[in-house]
Amino acid sequence: MTIKVIARSVVRPHSLPEALRLYEALVKETVLEPGCHSYELFQDIDDPHRLTLIEEWEDLQALDLHTKTPHFVDLVSQLTEHEDELPVHRYSRVF
Amino acid sequence: MTIKVIARSVVRPHSLPEALRLYEALVKETVLEPGCHSYELFQDIDDPHRLTLIEEWEDLQALDLHTKTPHFVDLVSQLTEHEDELPVHRYSRVF
Repeated sequence: MTIKVIARSVVRPHSLPEALRLYEALVKETVLEPGCHSYELFQDIDDPHRLTLIEEWEDLQALDLHTKTPHFVDLVSQLTEHEDELPVHRYSRVF
Repeated sequence: MTIKVIARSVVRPHSLPEALRLYEALVKETVLEPGCHSYELFQDIDDPHRLTLIEEWEDLQALDLHTKTPHFVDLVSQLTEHEDELPVHRYSRVF
């Protein structure tokens, strides 16, 4: 079952350039992972400090492996210094 | 500028079948609209009453026209009887 993930965050004041640098590295590494259909970062047009990853994975196993990769563990731990993470939701497509 | 929209909602107890029926009609009509790149409904795998539309539009104008179409106005007004809408966010892609 293909899994869609929406991972939203709010970047702290003055942290946007650094957060974007970390996200760019995360996207670059993640799209190379097996089972990653897409992994894109979006910025809220009404509030540039609101960022959202929209991801698509082959299945839950691929997603689970992703969260254990060195680049994910390292970059996400650095990101926590620059942003507040909102609950991550995992979805399956209906229509 | 391509616009990505995430529109989340929480369906009320016993309203899921009806909400899904209305969303199916909304998706069917909306994907035919000019400027609509994609318009998909997703269901939270951890809570089936959490639904999310992930949409992609050619630009803000196409999105604006969408919200004025008869099918959108009609179906969304019916949906409000069956769900609670969360804030809709509009995004542009970064990476």
